[in-house]
Amino acid sequence: MRYDSKNPHYYNNDRFILSKGHAAPLLYAAWAETGLFPTEDLLKLRTLGSDLEGHPTPRLPFVDVATGSLGQGLGVGVGMALCARLDKLDYRTYVLMGDGEIAEGAVWEAASLAGVNELNNLIAIVDVNRLGQSQETAFGHHLNVYKRRFESFGWRTEEIDGHDLEEITEVLAAVGLGKQPLVILAKTLKGAGISFIQDKEGWHGKPLSKDEAARAIAELQPTAKSGIGHHIPAPTQLPAPKNEAPASYPPTAYKLGDMAATREAFGNALLRIGEVDQRIVAMDGDTKNSTYSEKFYKKFPERFTECFIAEQDMVGVATGFSTRGKVPFASTFACFFSRAYDQIRVAGISMANLKIVGSHVGVSIGEDGPSQMGLEDLAMMRAVAGSTVLYPSDAVAAEKLVEQMALNRGIHYLRTSRPKAAVIYNNDEQFPIGGAKVLRQAAGDKVTVVAAGVTLTEALKAADQLKNEGIGITVIDAYSVKPLAKDAIKAAAQATGNVVLTVEDHYTEGGLGDAVAGELSSEGIRVHKLAVTELPHSGKPEELLARYGIDAGAIVRKVKSLG
Amino acid sequence: MRYDSKNPHYYNNDRFILSKGHAAPLLYAAWAETGLFPTEDLLKLRTLGSDLEGHPTPRLPFVDVATGSLGQGLGVGVGMALCARLDKLDYRTYVLMGDGEIAEGAVWEAASLAGVNELNNLIAIVDVNRLGQSQETAFGHHLNVYKRRFESFGWRTEEIDGHDLEEITEVLAAVGLGKQPLVILAKTLKGAGISFIQDKEGWHGKPLSKDEAARAIAELQPTAKSGIGHHIPAPTQLPAPKNEAPASYPPTAYKLGDMAATREAFGNALLRIGEVDQRIVAMDGDTKNSTYSEKFYKKFPERFTECFIAEQDMVGVATGFSTRGKVPFASTFACFFSRAYDQIRVAGISMANLKIVGSHVGVSIGEDGPSQMGLEDLAMMRAVAGSTVLYPSDAVAAEKLVEQMALNRGIHYLRTSRPKAAVIYNNDEQFPIGGAKVLRQAAGDKVTVVAAGVTLTEALKAADQLKNEGIGITVIDAYSVKPLAKDAIKAAAQATGNVVLTVEDHYTEGGLGDAVAGELSSEGIRVHKLAVTELPHSGKPEELLARYGIDAGAIVRKVKSLG
Repeated sequence: MRYDSKNPHYYNNDRFILSKGHAAPLLYAAWAETGLFPTEDLLKLRTLGSDLEGHPTPRLPFVDVATGSLGQGLGVGVGMALCARLDKLDYRTYVLMGDGEIAEGAVWEAASLAGVNELNNLIAIVDVNRLGQSQETAFGHHLNVYKRRFESFGWRTEEIDGHDLEEITEVLAAVGLGKQPLVILAKTLKGAGISFIQDKEGWHGKPLSKDEAARAIAELQPTAKSGIGHHIPAPTQLPAPKNEAPASYPPTAYKLGDMAATREAFGNALLRIGEVDQRIVAMDGDTKNSTYSEKFYKKFPERFTECFIAEQDMVGVATGFSTRGKVPFASTFACFFSRAYDQIRVAGISMANLKIVGSHVGVSIGEDGPSQMGLEDLAMMRAVAGSTVLYPSDAVAAEKLVEQMALNRGIHYLRTSRPKAAVIYNNDEQFPIGGAKVLRQAAGDKVTVVAAGVTLTEALKAADQLKNEGIGITVIDAYSVKPLAKDAIKAAAQATGNVVLTVEDHYTEGGLGDAVAGELSSEGIRVHKLAVTELPHSGKPEELLARYGIDAGAIVRKVKSLG
Repeated sequence: MRYDSKNPHYYNNDRFILSKGHAAPLLYAAWAETGLFPTEDLLKLRTLGSDLEGHPTPRLPFVDVATGSLGQGLGVGVGMALCARLDKLDYRTYVLMGDGEIAEGAVWEAASLAGVNELNNLIAIVDVNRLGQSQETAFGHHLNVYKRRFESFGWRTEEIDGHDLEEITEVLAAVGLGKQPLVILAKTLKGAGISFIQDKEGWHGKPLSKDEAARAIAELQPTAKSGIGHHIPAPTQLPAPKNEAPASYPPTAYKLGDMAATREAFGNALLRIGEVDQRIVAMDGDTKNSTYSEKFYKKFPERFTECFIAEQDMVGVATGFSTRGKVPFASTFACFFSRAYDQIRVAGISMANLKIVGSHVGVSIGEDGPSQMGLEDLAMMRAVAGSTVLYPSDAVAAEKLVEQMALNRGIHYLRTSRPKAAVIYNNDEQFPIGGAKVLRQAAGDKVTVVAAGVTLTEALKAADQLKNEGIGITVIDAYSVKPLAKDAIKAAAQATGNVVLTVEDHYTEGGLGDAVAGELSSEGIRVHKLAVTELPHSGKPEELLARYGIDAGAIVRKVKSLG
């Protein structure tokens, strides 16, 4: 590997991902050897006072992404390798996997995309030590099984003795040849060199006793036959990629009352800000004509990755781009991000700068039925460490929130809707993260209704109907579900007798209603919820909003029923 | 296929899974042809009044599992095929997939397990029509790519012209040969037989205009060259599997004060009830020595499926078993079920009888760090349609809840913990779903503390400390997170000035606190929450409980701070 070990983040350093994160002590020891930190620090392993944690996280400067949930490293590596190509850099990306994790489908999603894209700057190494945590793997030391599989996925393969450093260095010297990604299948013995552990089951993750440790250390010998030492080749000098945010974005140009779906506004926004912000890249899972990421793809195909129907890999690729200074927007139907929830969870641990856009949320998609309805996405995305969850109700809000996503670091989720909705905001309206919009409010209002997306439209309809009957309601657009505009909602609620009604096109668990109740209940606010409380059926969108009790009629009835 | 078309659920019927669920109209038309329902009903497609929904669901008697989220059918098929072998039945399982969905890693997890288990009773058919939703697939009509991949995963392959019914029937007549699962790669043209659609992009999911429909119908001709007609072979007569619940389970035998982890109690329970309940099967993802499903595996290896590190497939396999009358318990670390969230979501739509057991929850696992901590599992599992979420605090509760999971239909999630905890319940204590236990309560209590798992232990410690200072608290064990024991918690809260404090080893979003606030806020109860509010670090369990503010000390401080 070619890198500046004093500057692990240098943009043209080769990258290394320890996908088998449980081997963290090896990684830490190797970096201590480079002189990045004192070897004494290794003794702080797994303590609260040290970032040498049980599994690697980017709290350490030489770790790009958290690992420890197996089978995720290769997808991230694909993203890095694609980014090197985009940035015209010659760094290579190395991913070390265990043989056990090769059972993860995510590995094969990534392998396929690497093959299709002929990523000869990507090198996977599989440590085939035969032993999983609880038993032998399905294929033991039969390297030929892995060889056939990777070859069928478009990879060049090399089989080596993983304990022979000369063979390892020889194979590594020949990386980058040809058009294919390379996988090195390394036959190894778990616990090699320790007679009472080597190639034996039952030692995974087990500490040695003091006596066993003494025996093991006495038995261990250096395995290097050649004089490899500490020479680390320097990275090539190439122009740095342009990864700065622009001073501003071009304005939006909607008219009040225009009909536009927020999913389409997302597509417009990505194209609009992508014109001036070179950091923006996008990826989709063969739904780009539904999520509208297609608009960006058509203009900037080189900055777009079609991940096909492989959402885990899509999130991995996006995370890989994010580690290289890009701002990746990954889009598909909201419900299909549940396929990549583990990747998103781990991106949270990686503190990745990842932008996720889920379309087709809730029963308002209509006839396609429950398998296509995102009804758990708010719960799922709220529970990601450090995440921001945004849910626009009109096209202006959607576009402005896409800007916020690009300008702020971290995992941001944008929830977009299938149906068209009227534009209700002016083009100069601002949508800061953590904000909310009070759309209707008058003295004597009975209830504060908090909604977003399609239910905001319904809440505004309900407000009109109730007004005709002499009942006033405050209506709040809670476009920022996390962080929630707690103070604004609280203030409005206090003016309506401390009563709030939340309405959402989402299951009742973990969504907007729980968010509001979870934050405001302790303040003495009574939070009533309208949400989807049963498995929905196919039907027309307006029929379904009524059937599941989240349309204007349901709001009117509920408001009237409240003390 | 051999089946009794008047009785789609007959136990030895061949099974068919339309994994490419968007082709639902074909499935419905085929079943109408068998005479199961009038062909006129087909015109009710995608309406609220008909169960012929946009994608198939088990609301229809001939559908075992919901499809529509691509790439899930094969995993379920593997479970069915394994179950046929267990039950000594000769039905075959057919799974029809699209070529687009072959990009899903879940397909390759399932393909690998099918190959390893030599499931020659499993037949996959891939409709290689070249066109995805938004563009051509990565491999177009290059069937040889799929052929090489499936062969490397241990499958026998056949390539056919998917429009030649004679070739199709010839290949199907030879299923069951050899030891390998069979995949039929069918080259097809999307929209075949309609000149202006056939093999063209841009028609996915698009309805035809009236004129276009007339032209299309005029162009379409029957493609059957042989007289296949309506003859449906009958299934073989074989003894029915024994899928009845036993009258009772043997009792547990813990002593108050015994130290046992709830994860170990789960293992004990599975073994104990598995002895008398033949419906119980189990599967794990190479963590059986950590989740303790190993206890069952050692006694009943034939009823256990090692799924290796492939959680999506594990949930698919479990769902497959559940459709055949078994009660499958799938276990791994709680956080790794996030890998299979889409499969679990769709199992909810399938109304599957699926039991999920997630261990190693929260910061209390300690040194392994955040990638191994289940901190979003309550949020995730609560938001599954029809799910039940259980969280035992001691070994007796864990065992009794496993019984409840086996005796009640539906998706049940059991959250188990890594650390040992004292047994606090007698062996005759009952734990009905939807219940809670009031463990400490006295007149004049200041606050009702609601906890579960490790935080219940902390709450009891806090109660003792506060008692010494003259402050009483009510302590409730909320072992049933969904459904929540709303009335019991409400009654307790009303006796403590309408103030509740929830404490949980889970992120603050979507967990126990949000559940309690979401249900009780509207009743005028003030719910305060203690939960993990930042990305945690490695460290000792007790250090982490303190650092993240969910230990006895944090509870004591919070109780004192409450007005």
